[in-house]
Amino acid sequence: MLREAKITGLIFDPDANAPRITLKTGEGEEVPIWIGMPEASSIALALRKTSLERPITHDLFKNFMVLLGIHVSRVDVCSIRDGTYYAEIHFASNDSTFTMDARPSDAIALAVRFDAPLYVDDTIITEVLDKSEDGAKWAEYLKNLNPEDFGEFEV
Amino acid sequence: MLREAKITGLIFDPDANAPRITLKTGEGEEVPIWIGMPEASSIALALRKTSLERPITHDLFKNFMVLLGIHVSRVDVCSIRDGTYYAEIHFASNDSTFTMDARPSDAIALAVRFDAPLYVDDTIITEVLDKSEDGAKWAEYLKNLNPEDFGEFEV
Repeated sequence: MLREAKITGLIFDPDANAPRITLKTGEGEEVPIWIGMPEASSIALALRKTSLERPITHDLFKNFMVLLGIHVSRVDVCSIRDGTYYAEIHFASNDSTFTMDARPSDAIALAVRFDAPLYVDDTIITEVLDKSEDGAKWAEYLKNLNPEDFGEFEV
Repeated sequence: MLREAKITGLIFDPDANAPRITLKTGEGEEVPIWIGMPEASSIALALRKTSLERPITHDLFKNFMVLLGIHVSRVDVCSIRDGTYYAEIHFASNDSTFTMDARPSDAIALAVRFDAPLYVDDTIITEVLDKSEDGAKWAEYLKNLNPEDFGEFEV
């Protein structure tokens, strides 16, 4: 079952040496997803509503969709296998809807540009909580974090 | 006037501390364009026909277009102002064509994924040759380059 989630953090995780985005469900469970630097930067820019003089790749992609009358209606983070997350982007136009598989980072970078809701599958939450020994590991992570300037973002 | 050009180099330029792509016209003039690291990596992957397990952003963008029956028919690098290049992507479907402004790096990253031809405007070639004192500066650049492993690419 899918549950709506919000982005509650986007920081640079020194342990993983990679940016990490946190999605939090209405019930308070947190799902951390490690993503690439360009995608993290793109998500941060969109969350901050910063518009650059020159559109970056996700902006170009969005502008292309808008030109065609298509928007992102929702993004589902569907599954996790061997530590890798898989997402699905839902697109909609006046007369049709369709979906595409994508990396969560691209999917979220597009979702935030359309203010589209994010959903996380139950099975991911279960797996993450299991792995983290009832969240203790992630709590430890959060406690020990010394976020880099670039990526700290609270929403 | 636009002239067709080929990608003849994609290297890391230590002087600029940025990747540089070189477009060469049929008449032998070379136009260097400095681009971002993620875009350079994306172009290199596409030129090498390397397919990753997970599509990167330009692959996702391409897959989206293919799903809609749209392709990139050509890319024009149209102008240069204050050292910044501007490009235009030409899209085509069965029943229509349209264009969008883009950064040259995004435009080229998409063009190579569709084997679409690249064109460079005359005015850019004139400006680049002027600035380089008949090409001496670029020749110097090329001579002194110590390309990083990641980006060296000869086509």
